[in-house]
Amino acid sequence: MKIDNSPARGMRDLLPADVAVRDHVLESISAVYRRFGYQRIETPALEHIDRLSSGEGGDNEKLIFEVLRRGLPPEVPAGTPLRELVDLGLRYDLTVPLTRFYGNNHASLPMPFRSLQVGPVWRADRPQRGRYRQFYQCDIDMIGEPSVLAEAELIEATTEALAAIGLTGLIVRLSDRRFLAALAADCGVPADRQDAFFITVDKLDKIGWAGVRAELLESGFDAAQVDAAEKKIQGLIGVPADELADALTRSVPTLAPEVVADLSATAASLERLAAERPLDWQFDPTLVRGMGYYTGHVFEIIHPEMSGSVAGGGRYDKLIGRSLGHDVPACGFSIGFERIVDLLSREQPRDAIAVLVEADVPVPDAVAVARETREQAGPGRVVETVRRSGKFGAQLKRLEAAGCTGFVLVRSEDGAIVRGELRALGGDQGA
Amino acid sequence: MKIDNSPARGMRDLLPADVAVRDHVLESISAVYRRFGYQRIETPALEHIDRLSSGEGGDNEKLIFEVLRRGLPPEVPAGTPLRELVDLGLRYDLTVPLTRFYGNNHASLPMPFRSLQVGPVWRADRPQRGRYRQFYQCDIDMIGEPSVLAEAELIEATTEALAAIGLTGLIVRLSDRRFLAALAADCGVPADRQDAFFITVDKLDKIGWAGVRAELLESGFDAAQVDAAEKKIQGLIGVPADELADALTRSVPTLAPEVVADLSATAASLERLAAERPLDWQFDPTLVRGMGYYTGHVFEIIHPEMSGSVAGGGRYDKLIGRSLGHDVPACGFSIGFERIVDLLSREQPRDAIAVLVEADVPVPDAVAVARETREQAGPGRVVETVRRSGKFGAQLKRLEAAGCTGFVLVRSEDGAIVRGELRALGGDQGA
Repeated sequence: MKIDNSPARGMRDLLPADVAVRDHVLESISAVYRRFGYQRIETPALEHIDRLSSGEGGDNEKLIFEVLRRGLPPEVPAGTPLRELVDLGLRYDLTVPLTRFYGNNHASLPMPFRSLQVGPVWRADRPQRGRYRQFYQCDIDMIGEPSVLAEAELIEATTEALAAIGLTGLIVRLSDRRFLAALAADCGVPADRQDAFFITVDKLDKIGWAGVRAELLESGFDAAQVDAAEKKIQGLIGVPADELADALTRSVPTLAPEVVADLSATAASLERLAAERPLDWQFDPTLVRGMGYYTGHVFEIIHPEMSGSVAGGGRYDKLIGRSLGHDVPACGFSIGFERIVDLLSREQPRDAIAVLVEADVPVPDAVAVARETREQAGPGRVVETVRRSGKFGAQLKRLEAAGCTGFVLVRSEDGAIVRGELRALGGDQGA
Repeated sequence: MKIDNSPARGMRDLLPADVAVRDHVLESISAVYRRFGYQRIETPALEHIDRLSSGEGGDNEKLIFEVLRRGLPPEVPAGTPLRELVDLGLRYDLTVPLTRFYGNNHASLPMPFRSLQVGPVWRADRPQRGRYRQFYQCDIDMIGEPSVLAEAELIEATTEALAAIGLTGLIVRLSDRRFLAALAADCGVPADRQDAFFITVDKLDKIGWAGVRAELLESGFDAAQVDAAEKKIQGLIGVPADELADALTRSVPTLAPEVVADLSATAASLERLAAERPLDWQFDPTLVRGMGYYTGHVFEIIHPEMSGSVAGGGRYDKLIGRSLGHDVPACGFSIGFERIVDLLSREQPRDAIAVLVEADVPVPDAVAVARETREQAGPGRVVETVRRSGKFGAQLKRLEAAGCTGFVLVRSEDGAIVRGELRALGGDQGA
């Protein structure tokens, strides 16, 4: 009988080389975030199904892996709604658990609280190339900081984190939900149609202005609204930091002064950062970001070799309140971890010494020689014990392929154990 | 309305200080295992329910969190067996996924393959103090090594790993399933009752010989069997390495020579290890270990301050075959990660510098000063930006409590930004 050993549909096994790249990326990113004061927390993979289905998760709520309640009878009574069989679900993001975590633990946390979360989330999405049903997210959030100090720092920390893993040519895109609402209102778009309006505008980089225009008209927006918005939006893309306040006020006179001040301050921060680091930034009112809970700035980082964004986030001042009972300002940034790993996926080199043990060497001697070799090799060096088997040259080739850069041969001679010299692998010795 | 923000029943949130201790332990253990050639792999949290329920998991199979099949109708038809609603489950250990992983990926893995797995598992156990429904396991396994080289190395690596996190006074206990079977047969215990026999013997450290004896008699074993076994077992506890072969042969003359040879070789390895390291070891035929899949040596490590074991494992030469179709020798060792963390749980010190920013300092200046401070502080040093608020002395106390050891005050003076000197925290300045 052929046994199917593949992982569950849409999931995958991570081999040693995969994990090595992922660990390297995670450690590099985490080290940078740690330097900014972010501290790692962990929440359970399972949350109450009611919390996962409360509307904060948007479309992800349709993709929940639901967990059967314990203690149910072995046969389900007729007409039982499926929902009644379920009490838990696997988290589909790290933001919904974070808000619960903050509600549960805020009394023990500093103010502001800088959270770093790294871990798997699960979505029962249709499996496709490069998209899996279990994947890692890497989020930082600052909770308790009302000013754009949060935004400026989250963006700086994330550009540094991405630079630390070798990503160059990064561009930060900045927009603001309050600004988008004011712009839409100014163009005559009714408040209850703004979401639909901006979902279409958000597609600009995929379908261009002609496509956006056609889709908006088809959705029932009138030509005057579309023309006005297009003109304002196009006039504002890429306005430099020192002209942004004037341009915003001119374009959308009804815009609240604090929104102008926030955008100007963040823009000025990014301008200074871009002067010191090899990165670029752009004010871009076509940037919307999907989640409904954003209340202020939204931003993302793009990379020239990737469609879509490398990281995205925004301010969500009304979300913590749903768990805590009173609002606490909050702002977050999430790195598209799996996409970055795919982009990098070059091998992390191993550098192991093989202690190659002939068959007649007793086990106590074999492990003692390996121990000695490990001690002499110094900390950090990998020393692995391997039994001699098959043709010598072929075994050396296999060891080399497995990341060994040297070997020591251990054999028994007239009852004494003889340890050979450390010899390099990679040449043609012994082949 | 009071909102319940506690995690799901039996689960817990891990705060920054918790994660810091756990990360420290995991990194220390992993670094040691890596030096022995173990490489980390990862399998998905979800596995097919049939695999999780195939009998390899023992009692854990009763504790599976089962996941609802996708695409079911919203109402369940009458008489549907619960089982038909489920296709996946959360893993309850790391061994069952490892055997599937090896079956799926063996062609890409070295021989022998040294696996390191660290990650959460889930069991719907009755919640109790110190026992959670999601907890971490830390397993190493060597697949493909038939000799006790595997056992000797797994034990050495694990004692080193535990020493690296400061555990001292460790004692290794060694036994063997083949030996236990031969001993029982020799005493007249029928083959089909051996499991029951040894489950009781395994309780010796809890209920003593009198308790074991009473329970065995009550279970229907006759006094002659019990007396014979007790005499043999007691005579063998703690036999030194160089006398073990003779003692085993004398006590159980039917014992196969390869079992004697294996136990002698492992004992000799442990004897030499114990001569070089501050640890002890003991042959102990009362050690059984729970899982049914063990086929050879079983072993554990105990610590004077803990009841039960710190780590446990054994050889399972027939388990991989169920996934792969042909047997591959394998041996594993699992550290009781959560128990160790509980034992250690001293705080990992933070060492952060707070950049304390007065309210009138503009955001672009605040983040620029923080950046400068971070660059000057050097790599690895945490520099976190905090807004000045409330009484100065009280805020410094809060910063100190949050792990800050120094601060820099940033203020605005006549329009210029003034950064103060780095001052130490922990004294009485400014209070």
